[in-house]
Parts: sequence; structure tokens; C-alpha cells
Amino acid sequence: MLTPSVASSPVKKITADEIRDADDLLASEEPMEIRLGFGDAENRQQKNISVTMRTPGHDFELALGFLFTEGIIKNYHDVLQIKYCTDFNRVENQNNIVRVELKEDVEVDTEKLLRNFYTTSSCGVCGKASIEAIKTVGGWQSAERDFKIEASLIYSLPNVLRQQQHIFEYTGGLHAAALFSPEGEIIFIREDVGRHNALDKLIGAALAENLVPLNQHILLLSGRTSFELIQKAAMAGIRLVAAIGAPSDLAVKTAEEFDITLIGFLRDNRFNIYSVPERIII
Amino acid sequence: MLTPSVASSPVKKITADEIRDADDLLASEEPMEIRLGFGDAENRQQKNISVTMRTPGHDFELALGFLFTEGIIKNYHDVLQIKYCTDFNRVENQNNIVRVELKEDVEVDTEKLLRNFYTTSSCGVCGKASIEAIKTVGGWQSAERDFKIEASLIYSLPNVLRQQQHIFEYTGGLHAAALFSPEGEIIFIREDVGRHNALDKLIGAALAENLVPLNQHILLLSGRTSFELIQKAAMAGIRLVAAIGAPSDLAVKTAEEFDITLIGFLRDNRFNIYSVPERIII
Repeated sequence: MLTPSVASSPVKKITADEIRDADDLLASEEPMEIRLGFGDAENRQQKNISVTMRTPGHDFELALGFLFTEGIIKNYHDVLQIKYCTDFNRVENQNNIVRVELKEDVEVDTEKLLRNFYTTSSCGVCGKASIEAIKTVGGWQSAERDFKIEASLIYSLPNVLRQQQHIFEYTGGLHAAALFSPEGEIIFIREDVGRHNALDKLIGAALAENLVPLNQHILLLSGRTSFELIQKAAMAGIRLVAAIGAPSDLAVKTAEEFDITLIGFLRDNRFNIYSVPERIII
Repeated sequence: MLTPSVASSPVKKITADEIRDADDLLASEEPMEIRLGFGDAENRQQKNISVTMRTPGHDFELALGFLFTEGIIKNYHDVLQIKYCTDFNRVENQNNIVRVELKEDVEVDTEKLLRNFYTTSSCGVCGKASIEAIKTVGGWQSAERDFKIEASLIYSLPNVLRQQQHIFEYTGGLHAAALFSPEGEIIFIREDVGRHNALDKLIGAALAENLVPLNQHILLLSGRTSFELIQKAAMAGIRLVAAIGAPSDLAVKTAEEFDITLIGFLRDNRFNIYSVPERIII
């Protein structure tokens, strides 16, 4: 059964021995625009705040997570309504425009909207009009540092991810973000062509369930760790990030700055700890 | 020897048998801002047009390639000068701001600059203010379709890439883009934490050497193929894109639209052809 996240495409499979016509499953990639409605009844405004290339599915969570990790909304209660918004004469855009209506009393910095909110599938930082602005992580919540996890539990996470990461299995084309309890039980998994979207979807899901700050949870990332992924994790109060791939130097520095334990190269019962090792019991 | 593209970081390496303190090499990630100077002598203007998270190195090529694939400059001759621009009171930003001065007679659409030029390390499309605007590929050059490559040559490309991809070998943290001649000789290779930056650096290098349009070359990508990578390839006139990873559905549709042969899953002497198979001799 095809979901909106997967598309079928004819393909020629070439090997030294044969040429075969086949159908291949591909990860879907479509643009999604977020439009924000805000202000009080007399002065209601609308702004197109981002276009991101994303894999369709969990679109409302993506919009929620994006608005939260960018500091536009403080929690789910700021939101009055989320819906798809179709331009009548553009059938192909159906379900590619998400309109988020904020409650009247939510204050929005329109200057910031104008300058900063041009985004993308794999970058939460883009559009910050100056380099100095990059590190402004307004809504970051501090958490107690009494959270410890056994190394043996960390080893087990990639297997759980693989068992659940259905679309990747078919297409090889998606990034995943998964949220685990301290006991290693999976709570949410979200997939996307853009790794930042996968994390925004996950954080949006947690926000809608009132689970944020996620300071007693483990975030597992299927790929590499960049600065922006750590920035988003920090916004959601996450204290422990484990990734299958390598971190960048700035991801490590940022994790230290936000007191986040950052693990990389988590494969085959081994891993590296790049920051705040005290949370791991070995 | 450490290059600016690599940083050393203390790390705890954890396995079932031991805990070891070590130094790990990480891919560098730093913000880079592109500032554009344009207009005639009486009316000279400056605009900050993008902040992208990138791996330092080949910064001028990155700026060139970005401006070209976004349709701001048509060729290298539009550029008067490229230099680093340091804010005096911000030492840490040294070499993170690149200023591109255009010649006086180059016309720049300032409206477009205002709306569209907020970018990122892995998205050439972000900031397009509406979904409809995404597919505007102004400077795309058509090319004759008389270009054919043997399948056996395609098989050989990943090995050549691996032999040359030095930083990835150390850090596991970088994307690569490589340009090959029709004979399979490597011409340029560029690496970056952002796959779009790697491609922009490559196209910028080709532009500075007056090689564009690249309609007799092969582009090899180390990862997955997204819409934006195909859009950038199309801007540079590239007709054959081979990737180690999977394409998205929109990457395939866009390749078809621009008459680009798109190959994916190029590994272990096999590959898939997703579009325009006529260019491959089997």
C-alpha cells in the first residue's frame, strides 16, 4: 500500500549481467508553505513564513515543530487552528499549504518574521539575517541534570529504529528522528527527505501531546548531526542526542553550550560521546 | 595536518570491552554570509543575501556557485571582485563573510533579492516566497543530446571519488560532489557538511575556469539526490547526474523535465537509471 510519503517510478536496473525494467519506490518530496495568521480581531494579519521541501505526511506537526523551534510559538496553546489552505486555481498545491492560526493574545515579532523566516528542509538557521543572530535560542528550557542512561540501552536503540523505519526500508531515501523513553521504548518516529523536517515533525508531535520539555527522553537521529539539529533539540529541552552518523564540530560545541549529551557513530555496539559524558552509565 | 575543514575534538570511545579517551577529527561547520555589492557608481547598493552553514574552504567558489545557480549572475565576467569582509569588532567572524562586488553594468532584480535570498547549507530553494516560484530556473542552458557514456565507466566513478575524498575518510561527516570528464577523469571534487554547498562550490569552480555549461561532463554525488540538487545541476547545463544514494520522486520528475539522465544507487557495479536512459551505453 502506497502512502503519500512514497511514490512509484519506472526504473532500469543495470548490473554487469542484466538490464531489467522494474518499478522502484521513491521517497516523496514536495514543497510545503507555512502561512501564519496572527494579531487581534481588528488587526488580523497573514504572513507566508516559509517554504520547505518535505515528504508529505504529518504536515501539521511539521508546521507546529517549526514554529516552536524557531521561537514563534511557546506551546501548543498558542495555536487556535491548523488547516490546509488551497488556492482555488492551483489544484496541484492541495495539501501543500498549511495555515496556522494563532490565538489573538499571542504576540508575534513581525520584524523577526520578515527577516528570518525563510526556511528549508534541512536548515533551521537559514534566513537569520546576520551571523550573530544564529545562536539566539529564545525558548530553550533548562532542566535538572539528574538523568542517567545505561550504555547497554544506548546500544539497543538503532535496532528499534530500523524495525520501525518502514519508508526508509523501501526507498533508502529518508532521514528519521525517533524519541525514546529512558527505558528505551519508542514514543514517536518521524521520517522526511530533510533531516530537520523529521526532527520538527517529532517535536511538533511531542508538543501536541504536551510532552515538551523533553528533558527525560532520548532523541535518536538516523544520520549526521549538524548545528541546527542540536539547536532544535535544545529548544525542545532534550538532554541526550544519539546519532548513527558523525557530528560536525559546531554541533559538538553547541551541545556543550546547552548541556546536551551528544553521541555519534552509534553502530555495532559501540559509540562515541562528544559532550557531557556524565549522563551515560558505563 | 589539519585544514580549516577539519577540527579535532576530545571524545570518549565506548565499546562493550573498553572506554577510551581519544581525539576525533570532525568536519567543520561554520556560518557564511554572502554580501552582494551592485549598481552603478552613483547608486551603489549592498545587500546581505544569505547565511548558510558550510564547511570552511573554497568559500569564494561557494559564493560564485550560489549566485549562479540562483540566477543572480550569468557568468564569471559579471563579477568585479570577491573578498572576505571582516566586522572589526567581531574577530570570530573573520573569513565568514564573503563580499561579492558585481560590475556596474550587471542588472540585479532587487525585488527578487529581498524575497528569495535566504538560503541554507542544503537547500537552494528556500525563501522562494511562493510554491509556484520554485521551478523558475532562469539561466538553464539547453544542450545537444549527443552525449553517451558506457555503463562500465559509470561503475568506476565511486572508486575514484573514494580515493580523493580525503576529509570524509577522516570525519565521516561530509558530502561530496565531483565532476568527471566523459573519459572518467576527475576534474574537481568539493566537500561540505551541506550537500548543496558541495555542489555550489563545484559549479563555482567550473564557472571560474570558464567550463560552464557542463554539458559534456558527469556529476557524481556522494549521497541522495533531491530536487534542489537537480535544479542546480540544470542551471549549470549538466546532462548526467550519478548518485551513490536514492533520489526523491521530485528529483526524478525534475531530471526528466530538464532532460537530465539521473542515476541512483551506484554501488558494487550496479546502478538504477531513473530518467533519460538513452545516454547510457549498455
